[in-house]
Amino acid sequence: MRERSDALTLDAGDPLAGHRGHFVLPDGIVYLDGNSLGALPAALPARLDAVIHEQWGRDLIRSWNRHDWIDLPVRVGEAAAALIGAGPGQVVAADSTSVNLFKLLAAALDARPGRTVILSVEDNFPTDLYMAQGLARLLGGEVRLRLVSEPALEGAMDEDTAVVMLSHVDFRTGRIRDMAALTAAAHRAGALALWDLAHSAGVLPVALDAAEVDLAVGCGYKYLCGGPGAPAFLYVARRLQDRIASPLSGWMGHVAPFAFDPAYRPAPGVSRFLCGTPAVLAMTALEVGVETISLAGIDRLRAKATALTEYFITLADERLRDHGFELASPRDPADRGAQVSLRHAEGLPIMAALVARDVIGDFREPDILRFGFAPLTTRFVDVWDAVEILVEIMETRAWDRPEHRRRPRVT
Amino acid sequence: MRERSDALTLDAGDPLAGHRGHFVLPDGIVYLDGNSLGALPAALPARLDAVIHEQWGRDLIRSWNRHDWIDLPVRVGEAAAALIGAGPGQVVAADSTSVNLFKLLAAALDARPGRTVILSVEDNFPTDLYMAQGLARLLGGEVRLRLVSEPALEGAMDEDTAVVMLSHVDFRTGRIRDMAALTAAAHRAGALALWDLAHSAGVLPVALDAAEVDLAVGCGYKYLCGGPGAPAFLYVARRLQDRIASPLSGWMGHVAPFAFDPAYRPAPGVSRFLCGTPAVLAMTALEVGVETISLAGIDRLRAKATALTEYFITLADERLRDHGFELASPRDPADRGAQVSLRHAEGLPIMAALVARDVIGDFREPDILRFGFAPLTTRFVDVWDAVEILVEIMETRAWDRPEHRRRPRVT
Repeated sequence: MRERSDALTLDAGDPLAGHRGHFVLPDGIVYLDGNSLGALPAALPARLDAVIHEQWGRDLIRSWNRHDWIDLPVRVGEAAAALIGAGPGQVVAADSTSVNLFKLLAAALDARPGRTVILSVEDNFPTDLYMAQGLARLLGGEVRLRLVSEPALEGAMDEDTAVVMLSHVDFRTGRIRDMAALTAAAHRAGALALWDLAHSAGVLPVALDAAEVDLAVGCGYKYLCGGPGAPAFLYVARRLQDRIASPLSGWMGHVAPFAFDPAYRPAPGVSRFLCGTPAVLAMTALEVGVETISLAGIDRLRAKATALTEYFITLADERLRDHGFELASPRDPADRGAQVSLRHAEGLPIMAALVARDVIGDFREPDILRFGFAPLTTRFVDVWDAVEILVEIMETRAWDRPEHRRRPRVT
Repeated sequence: MRERSDALTLDAGDPLAGHRGHFVLPDGIVYLDGNSLGALPAALPARLDAVIHEQWGRDLIRSWNRHDWIDLPVRVGEAAAALIGAGPGQVVAADSTSVNLFKLLAAALDARPGRTVILSVEDNFPTDLYMAQGLARLLGGEVRLRLVSEPALEGAMDEDTAVVMLSHVDFRTGRIRDMAALTAAAHRAGALALWDLAHSAGVLPVALDAAEVDLAVGCGYKYLCGGPGAPAFLYVARRLQDRIASPLSGWMGHVAPFAFDPAYRPAPGVSRFLCGTPAVLAMTALEVGVETISLAGIDRLRAKATALTEYFITLADERLRDHGFELASPRDPADRGAQVSLRHAEGLPIMAALVARDVIGDFREPDILRFGFAPLTTRFVDVWDAVEILVEIMETRAWDRPEHRRRPRVT
């Protein structure tokens, strides 16, 4: 029989336990949604305060030079690069994941003239699909988004495929795709590979350069802890940088933004994928988030996340087996990101009941309860408590109340 | 003979004088660059602190519903709408000005099938031109950006013109364009009118609805005081909203973002022009900026800005006439925004010498010294002191030093 004390023993032996103090966390909740919104880094308030008072407030416009605001997209990009296996000069922080996807999809199509297909899988994250649909529509039917099932993916890469757009970790199931193998397959078909790192950056080793990835985007507000709606980042492999350009050719991607040249000329390198003025407050928060995560080291982050998801699955196997749950995530930890998803026909009210008991995960249509295990803010005892409360909810049918069936606006 | 005491008398009689206390301003500088970066609202630090600690830190992901984060783009958009003559349901805050321009230019082209020209003027703000160039390039030569001189503008509006893209206030000279007349001219040619309000929103009355403007974008970090790199806003006239859509069709513009539908279906209304996840920290700062400006009322803001620019021009006429300056801004205040630009062959080192003396304006190639008079943070005595110091710099040739000829990275 397992005990809560086992979990406390695991926490006592956790080499990353001290990192939890790098975050501000509320008492009394079990937060298993760091894959939707990372926690608040403890260093952020003071850093942002300095930017607000000593930079914006005091030095005003002079801060662009004096405090290197103008370098924020590159500086924050380089900090993120170290977490995703990207050598220098290939990553910038900018805009949103959606906007960055648009830039890179358009650039990929431009790099593969005559090829008309953006290839992806049916269950990719919706906004990724929407951005590709918007681009295809804008291009007036010359280009199309082709969606296939996962098993059909490699076979669908053909001479029409300009770019293969995939999520590294599936947002519903947490399944990790084989980035190197799928990138190589795309290349064999003559296509580029564009990866969305939303659910992998900052929580498991990503090897963009080693996998010879062409293009990637990622999210700043999940495991990178950059704050709600944080800027995103993008990666363009060095070998491609001077051959492709952004369709969102704003002044920050110009070779000389302050020359006020009427004709656009792209900057050298990945900076050409910048567009508008950098969001200084938001970039500052993202910078602090990336720094806070980076202190732990990506291998230790991965090891802890794996231990947490293994522990959750072990407890769920033992204690939830009579309650109609089905594991939606891969059982092999090598194939699984930092989340565990359970399917249940009553997933929506069950998750609502959990949230009402201060166990915060989220629900994804149609039937997925999603639990994220951000390794620096989740303890083993949180895993224990989450399962304990879930067992109680199931045994008492506490989920079976009308108020738990109401869909919130944001899920 | 005018005296500094005249300026102090003007300040004593200024009905908006008390509003200066709504901003945090450093001692000892004369800040005439609120048209590049608005000052820090005094209310912002506490508001942002609450969002950081009580929302992000404590309520975490639940804040999307509990604190209505999801409504920020609409809520901030509505607050801005009241400053620009837009009725409800037509403005959202989102992305950058550049990105918003791209969305609206593409939508305008889509609304005018068969028309292939984006028409603008040669001296429009560069990033506006760059975004149009990027879109034209993406569309593969089917569309072109046509640039004409100001006097040729109306004559160039013809049956090929899909959209006329203009800045309401010229960034170099501060000249106000006749929005109603030029919009009507665009409509007579069958084209849409897209206005960039970067240098007018928050400082002079803009009458988007009354002028029957179709589309507009504007900047959050200038007169709206939303902080460095603040989110921008966009306006789509209600009559067009359900007939056009955004090419940047991200999930926040979907009719049901959390249904995770694989096919994009645009939201009703202007919200369809949202794209990625809203930048909560940055939107909060913009919200406070807009609220702070709005307290003064747009007519009083305009009256004060006009009085400031008139005073500057009067003093410059009297005291700088022997030093080679030429007024680049319209002499008639009805034609002039809240800035005064002076041309001088040695403009770069003269501005550097001013900045070294803590009079902060900016320099715009090739020869423009630009002074912005944000009405809530600029006093008449600041105008006096700026001219006084400029006279000293000219009389002593303090500008004529090698260090003043170095171009900073950001100007």
